[in-house]
Amino acid sequence: MFLGGVGEVGRNMTCVELEDRVLIVDAGLSFPTHDQPGVDLVLPDFEYVRGRRDDVEAVVLTHGHEDHIGALPYLLREFGGRALPVYGTAFTLALLEGKLEEHGVRDRADLRTIRPGEGVRVGPFSMRFMRVTHSIPDGVAVAIDTPFGSILHTGDFKIDQTPLDGRPTDLHALAEEAGRGVHLLLSDSTNAEEAGYTASERSVGPVLTDIVARAPQLVVVACFSSHIHRIQQVVNAARANERVVTFLGRSMHQSVAAARRLGLLSVPDEDILPVEELGSFDPSRVVVICTGSQGEPLSALSLMAAREHKWVRLREGDVVVLSSSLIPGNEPAIHRVIDGLYRTGADVFHVPAAPVHASGHAAAEELRLMLSLVRPRWFVPIHGERRHLAHHAKLATEIGIPPERVLICEDGDVLEVGEKVEIAGRVPAGMTFVDGLGIGDVGEVVLRDRRKLAGEGVVVVVVAIDADHGQLVSGPDLVRRGFVFEETGANILDAARERVMLVLRESAEAEVTDPGVLEQNIRRALGRFFYDATQRKPVILPVILEV
Amino acid sequence: MFLGGVGEVGRNMTCVELEDRVLIVDAGLSFPTHDQPGVDLVLPDFEYVRGRRDDVEAVVLTHGHEDHIGALPYLLREFGGRALPVYGTAFTLALLEGKLEEHGVRDRADLRTIRPGEGVRVGPFSMRFMRVTHSIPDGVAVAIDTPFGSILHTGDFKIDQTPLDGRPTDLHALAEEAGRGVHLLLSDSTNAEEAGYTASERSVGPVLTDIVARAPQLVVVACFSSHIHRIQQVVNAARANERVVTFLGRSMHQSVAAARRLGLLSVPDEDILPVEELGSFDPSRVVVICTGSQGEPLSALSLMAAREHKWVRLREGDVVVLSSSLIPGNEPAIHRVIDGLYRTGADVFHVPAAPVHASGHAAAEELRLMLSLVRPRWFVPIHGERRHLAHHAKLATEIGIPPERVLICEDGDVLEVGEKVEIAGRVPAGMTFVDGLGIGDVGEVVLRDRRKLAGEGVVVVVVAIDADHGQLVSGPDLVRRGFVFEETGANILDAARERVMLVLRESAEAEVTDPGVLEQNIRRALGRFFYDATQRKPVILPVILEV
Repeated sequence: MFLGGVGEVGRNMTCVELEDRVLIVDAGLSFPTHDQPGVDLVLPDFEYVRGRRDDVEAVVLTHGHEDHIGALPYLLREFGGRALPVYGTAFTLALLEGKLEEHGVRDRADLRTIRPGEGVRVGPFSMRFMRVTHSIPDGVAVAIDTPFGSILHTGDFKIDQTPLDGRPTDLHALAEEAGRGVHLLLSDSTNAEEAGYTASERSVGPVLTDIVARAPQLVVVACFSSHIHRIQQVVNAARANERVVTFLGRSMHQSVAAARRLGLLSVPDEDILPVEELGSFDPSRVVVICTGSQGEPLSALSLMAAREHKWVRLREGDVVVLSSSLIPGNEPAIHRVIDGLYRTGADVFHVPAAPVHASGHAAAEELRLMLSLVRPRWFVPIHGERRHLAHHAKLATEIGIPPERVLICEDGDVLEVGEKVEIAGRVPAGMTFVDGLGIGDVGEVVLRDRRKLAGEGVVVVVVAIDADHGQLVSGPDLVRRGFVFEETGANILDAARERVMLVLRESAEAEVTDPGVLEQNIRRALGRFFYDATQRKPVILPVILEV
Repeated sequence: MFLGGVGEVGRNMTCVELEDRVLIVDAGLSFPTHDQPGVDLVLPDFEYVRGRRDDVEAVVLTHGHEDHIGALPYLLREFGGRALPVYGTAFTLALLEGKLEEHGVRDRADLRTIRPGEGVRVGPFSMRFMRVTHSIPDGVAVAIDTPFGSILHTGDFKIDQTPLDGRPTDLHALAEEAGRGVHLLLSDSTNAEEAGYTASERSVGPVLTDIVARAPQLVVVACFSSHIHRIQQVVNAARANERVVTFLGRSMHQSVAAARRLGLLSVPDEDILPVEELGSFDPSRVVVICTGSQGEPLSALSLMAAREHKWVRLREGDVVVLSSSLIPGNEPAIHRVIDGLYRTGADVFHVPAAPVHASGHAAAEELRLMLSLVRPRWFVPIHGERRHLAHHAKLATEIGIPPERVLICEDGDVLEVGEKVEIAGRVPAGMTFVDGLGIGDVGEVVLRDRRKLAGEGVVVVVVAIDADHGQLVSGPDLVRRGFVFEETGANILDAARERVMLVLRESAEAEVTDPGVLEQNIRRALGRFFYDATQRKPVILPVILEV
């Protein structure tokens, strides 16, 4: 049997193979980085799964975050007619269902609700689910039996001893699993660099209540829409201060509706103020709960920071709380939003300056606890960039797991799980870009071109030549975008035109008529010319028309 | 008198006007953000200074960091023949001199060395300089007399009670200045969000020594080349473990040479190993000290992470230390380098996971101390994004400065300093982009085009038409870059070509021959077509050749 495709941060997806059948654990997506311009979403490479299409038994979801379920609507399209069994807890499936409907692929999935503590058998796979605490309700770890003992995949977790819903990470079930014998542990590495313990979710409540109590006017709290326990604490803070709440943002409404339906979030109807009534309501009696805590450009919070929000116009004395982390890579966007919020005159609370957030991931001591409790024979840190995996590996060896039983994998590594666990090969893995309607048609070549275009702009050179004699009939016309500014650019372009004429004359003398060669000569001469004149290297696109 | 142009992070530059003369405090530059593609450097807008060219008395530099001196070579070009007096401490001027020579403008500056504790008079300006500790030696605060008391500009500082060179921030001089009466304090806000005190630079030494002591093989430490006290501590750690040091990187060599010449850095010649000899030397007896701690693409450290460095090939057992902060915006680049370093098998130490760095900026308690000690009548927080200024303003009101005497300024605000201090207007301020040889020729329009090109690529449409009858002679030819991938793109481009033909036929029927109108028709039709087909919006550049 083997296990392939260990997910890095985002695009989490792990395939477990047993008796020629494949079980997929999670199918997440990530968001583009700055060097992936124009890309909307990044999916895992499905090539391996595509090749094993008929062997896939089911998908198991550990929790409902985008980086664990977001790629599923795309994955399901790979499975033609049959509805793929998808296992998840109630809240995970509730979030997923909305997504599948938006993508028009609801019928491609056979959703099967699991409950933490339960066991499930599908094909050759025998699984047990254990509750874990995280920044979304209803997360689970999953244990999968193998002939050598189980593989335990923690999902994303922290060991919160005082979770808001009173349902902590199930240490007893983990201990039982350890008693049964965990052959291989795959454990969340996100916060492996953080010393000590992650603060309990409950620690945020009093801070929020205090901020709301002191606020003289409107309070706005931004957080993740799926972070129901955080939302509950904001609601509690509002109610404790006799304020109603207004939910803003589409995903916030969807998530709140699902959580209320499932009994995970308690807000009386009469405490919810529709956004349309906000303008006519006493702002000192409202808390707005909205999305946009990561600085997303068109989110409610960004619009407020730019003073462009339809319903909320911030002013001096208002209070804004960003009750969230700074996801790596989002810092500039978040800081821009925070600075904009300050400019409105509002007072702003955010980490690290104010303790208005607690992470959902286990820090070093909790990771050690997980390792000590589970006592795996083999260990593979997952869910993190290389540095997080390296730190997590260090923690494992510190508590006594022999270094040769700790393996650091890259996306796509195939683990052969026998008595020994070893990296036995590679399957295709990497990024598939979603850009507009296109999935996978934008590749690294296109991105490289885009980065080049962005760096120095583009100059198009058009000439029409006589098809028979190669004589210049019209042009050269030069058109540019993103390359030097209009006024100062004029002389350079005149000189560039002269340069193209010279190339054409020289080529004619040398009896060069092949348009491909002409284009190359123009590209080369102009490239050199522009670099000498400006030390810039625009993309040069010569077009030779034969008339 | 007035004071204009309060610098944000980077591009620090403040102008003080008295009796119609202008004194410039610092002239720094910043580095481009991700939404400024192709830009090399960002300078302050010199328009105000240009207009007062003949009135500028001198430039005063608080310390030698790029964001305080980097724009000076460009600024000096504004002053025609005369050599502008530039005041700075010995190390500041040593770093500046190298820069001026590289730019060929050494003769434009009349460098005048000041010593902390001294007073200087130039034109109507009476100034006193006070030593401050920072992450570069030889930093000063400057007090400038006005009829209402002095303006005290802290420069960048922390209040390190145990600096490595035994020369702490001169609290006595600050107290004396307070006794004389500080009318207006301008103080560094960088770390205003951080609670407590910034750790002493000295705290880093034992950590580095311990890391070097435990390292079985090569140790590489990356830090800022101007951070001489950090470099000294790395050298000390090496010597304590009987290792020699190798300096890598051009700016590192320049800075180390200047510091040794001025007696600020102590490294015996025999302890320096030239990089060429590294290959034949026992790696367990060397510490490499290099640049690149901010993930700069072509730096020594980035090349090591990519296994492309000419002299250093990292392997399992080697140790790399990033003895530096993560400057906001650089996080993705730094993380990429750290992940690459881990992949080489090396062990990597970096903040926050390891205490291998101490900031050079005062945290909240030190800022309060500065405010309490100086007791200014008016206060303007400087050197920070809006959120830092807002936090610093809060600290000032907390220690008893009346809120109406605390002013938060934006770049370009003009402060009228009389008995009252108030924002009295604006001067032009903002960013001037340096791109290759061009200074200021790339503006927001060009950047917007570049971002558009980066987002979706470009499609060029070329047609040749008969100049007399508007009949199609050749084309349409479509050329694209950064827009859909070769294989899947073919059908779309065929269909697009058809679409252009249709536009041309329709235009001919409507007797449209004006190339401008034709171009617009093509741009519109293709824009709609591509968006419907792909939900992408490439830049469309139609070129009509009349033949």
